[in-house]
Amino acid sequence: MAKSMENIVSLAKHRGFVFPGSEIYGGLANTWDYGPLGVELKNNVKKAWWKKFVQESQYNVGLDAAILMNPKTWVASGHVGNFNDPMVDCKKCKSRHRADKLIEDAALAQGQEIIVDGLPLDKMAEVMSEYDVKCPDCGEQDFTEIRQFNLMFKTFQGVTESSTNEIFLRPETAQGIFVNFKNVQRSMRKRTPFGIAQVGKSFRNEITPGNFTFRTREFEQMELEFFCKPGTELEWHAYWKDFCKNWLLNLSMSESSMRLRDHADDELSHYSNATTDIEFQFPFGWGELWGVASRTDFDLKRHMEHSGEDFTYIDPVTNERYVPYCIEPSLGADRVTLAFLCDAYDEEELENDDKRTVLRFHPALAPFKAAVLPLSKKLAEQANDVWADLRKEFPVDYDESQSIGKRYRRQDEIGTPFCITYDFDSVEDGQVTVRHRDSMEQVRMPIADVKAYIAKHLEF
Amino acid sequence: MAKSMENIVSLAKHRGFVFPGSEIYGGLANTWDYGPLGVELKNNVKKAWWKKFVQESQYNVGLDAAILMNPKTWVASGHVGNFNDPMVDCKKCKSRHRADKLIEDAALAQGQEIIVDGLPLDKMAEVMSEYDVKCPDCGEQDFTEIRQFNLMFKTFQGVTESSTNEIFLRPETAQGIFVNFKNVQRSMRKRTPFGIAQVGKSFRNEITPGNFTFRTREFEQMELEFFCKPGTELEWHAYWKDFCKNWLLNLSMSESSMRLRDHADDELSHYSNATTDIEFQFPFGWGELWGVASRTDFDLKRHMEHSGEDFTYIDPVTNERYVPYCIEPSLGADRVTLAFLCDAYDEEELENDDKRTVLRFHPALAPFKAAVLPLSKKLAEQANDVWADLRKEFPVDYDESQSIGKRYRRQDEIGTPFCITYDFDSVEDGQVTVRHRDSMEQVRMPIADVKAYIAKHLEF
Repeated sequence: MAKSMENIVSLAKHRGFVFPGSEIYGGLANTWDYGPLGVELKNNVKKAWWKKFVQESQYNVGLDAAILMNPKTWVASGHVGNFNDPMVDCKKCKSRHRADKLIEDAALAQGQEIIVDGLPLDKMAEVMSEYDVKCPDCGEQDFTEIRQFNLMFKTFQGVTESSTNEIFLRPETAQGIFVNFKNVQRSMRKRTPFGIAQVGKSFRNEITPGNFTFRTREFEQMELEFFCKPGTELEWHAYWKDFCKNWLLNLSMSESSMRLRDHADDELSHYSNATTDIEFQFPFGWGELWGVASRTDFDLKRHMEHSGEDFTYIDPVTNERYVPYCIEPSLGADRVTLAFLCDAYDEEELENDDKRTVLRFHPALAPFKAAVLPLSKKLAEQANDVWADLRKEFPVDYDESQSIGKRYRRQDEIGTPFCITYDFDSVEDGQVTVRHRDSMEQVRMPIADVKAYIAKHLEF
Repeated sequence: MAKSMENIVSLAKHRGFVFPGSEIYGGLANTWDYGPLGVELKNNVKKAWWKKFVQESQYNVGLDAAILMNPKTWVASGHVGNFNDPMVDCKKCKSRHRADKLIEDAALAQGQEIIVDGLPLDKMAEVMSEYDVKCPDCGEQDFTEIRQFNLMFKTFQGVTESSTNEIFLRPETAQGIFVNFKNVQRSMRKRTPFGIAQVGKSFRNEITPGNFTFRTREFEQMELEFFCKPGTELEWHAYWKDFCKNWLLNLSMSESSMRLRDHADDELSHYSNATTDIEFQFPFGWGELWGVASRTDFDLKRHMEHSGEDFTYIDPVTNERYVPYCIEPSLGADRVTLAFLCDAYDEEELENDDKRTVLRFHPALAPFKAAVLPLSKKLAEQANDVWADLRKEFPVDYDESQSIGKRYRRQDEIGTPFCITYDFDSVEDGQVTVRHRDSMEQVRMPIADVKAYIAKHLEF
């Protein structure tokens, strides 16, 4: 089965999931627009996350902080000082690269897996010549010096472009949560352990974005910052690691396409005492979906130092005073949407040399939950009534063109779990045929039962 | 009844609806963060819009285009050339103002309602001295020349800050729809009339933002672009005008706080043949919520000219060829959320000189649909089971601190429509008391019936 990115990107474009951004103007490097089905899919992913991480949680509440923040936030968080990629230009062909990636790729080609992230630039230059790094575009070995490049998008607020008006597009949603720690804790009268969850756009001026919607400069995050008593954080880290994995499994992601990778001690950030990546096997290789990090009190303490605000939590029962430790499960909404799309994509061989493309989404994620198909255009009026009634409950498609077989295939290709065929008998007996996407089996049932039948399949 | 902005802003902060953005760093001019209740309220508003404008619509589909677009988009749309505010500085106190607003305010103080938007700058300067405009901050009459100030936020994509890398944060979501007209129409096999709906952030570098979340530089829009056959557009304009008004009324916005204002001929944009504003009476005065504009084929034609793409639609039945006309109902998500908050806010006088603050949200908009309140802490375990079961269905609060009366008041203040009291009888008879927020009436019902009872009230 050819689950290639090429086929997935092509289906995504032609069936209205993802279009190249600003396409009529030749695009804008690596921006993508979600089409009518893509926006439903991605919204369903976000809703499924919010349902399990906020609505059903006894611990967590939500937040929606502004993208534009006071620039002192990014000094405190370390993004002004440290959020850099080492960048190098090929003098010959003028192409621009991340030096760390060039080195790691060259090492890998020589059978060695190394990580150079965090090395000082002069040291990195040494390693670069050690591994005999060549320009991947032209093959030459004539590079500029390695320079640090800050990944934050810069803009100006107010009417002058002076440095006093310089602000940044947030590179992560997490800091909007940390700065509001006290506001949320007080207004919601929360006691530890509790979490604050947020979904929203972030921006990183990546030197080399790519792999469709996997790495883009504008992207959406779903982050939880979970605050707990120091000493309990490793327990909670294990709890959220499991919780995240189960969320994916409950939405039908196949376990064989997923792996959990604990960071080794020398790979951990200096403030983290445990980090696990949940990775997914994309057609282009393994890629990180979810980082679940135990970040100690690093972030709250940094903001305490820089703002003068006191984030000490006082336990109302024991009167203990502490700055809470924090577990951060951080997920890319676009990434995990792409993972669900890739995982769902299937080209199935059928009898008689026939085949079909089918997106095997969990019904909760499918853009349309059902499609109403009148067997003949003569039945359009009655079928339309069924359609109007069903779409009060959930998104439902309607299709009356071409043969019923072709219409089934079209719905398979966009992952609609149920096709509801209205035929001439339906007029008499008030029953319709419900076809299952995956098994292609058909069951006959009263029209009045269809809503509840579908609703039951949406549970996860 | 004192429905003042001061009281509303204060409640919003203390009960977790809206916090000042980046507050611990002294804020960032006019940015706001939605707290745990605010994000639920705003999400409910967005969901209610999507339900009626996309899910239940036989005409419309959704879209989610990137914020960052190819800059040619903004040349074609006219934003590079024309999206300016006339700006003037007071030489004395250095305060900065919009010249058009200063003039209109001065005229109003003299009993005249004038609109100077669109006047050439030299003409505007004349009118300014005609009306004897003074600086509203210091009272002096010593201004700089009026200059045009472009309202788009500028940033740089890629690793150099050269003008070739200059891009803009979109000032409206509409253009993401227009550039995708063909992609959507083809992939969804749509026939006119059909619409494309989008919810998303936009950014405008306003000179004078203000009035809480009413006018902010970063804001969220809910826009529909509805494409129809030329000649039918005034009919459709009337249709969507009614549709929008009814959406507000069905979500319990009071009709007396709302007015529709048709633009006079001399107020219409040159490409529009009908525009209606739906305005809401905020505590600070009337403000625009929704602009419903008939924009002819202006936008599609501009993009055809600038991109070379052909947006001609061919009717598959009649073979007629035309560039569709467009109706644009454009709504600010933050604004309409603020309108619902202001409309819901009530300070009610009760018997015995008692009073309560209550947010009379439509249940579909209320952050929590219900709150579970055990009469005694001894009942916490059983009440927790009820809570866990209910929050699978919708957001539900839980509160066991202080007297039941105080807990009712707290829920009234955040607009929770139903309080579910679990008492000692509940253990025996499996029934709970459900209290209605608005009438304060109480009914006793089986626990098993509560979900359906609440769900029925969420319909709109």
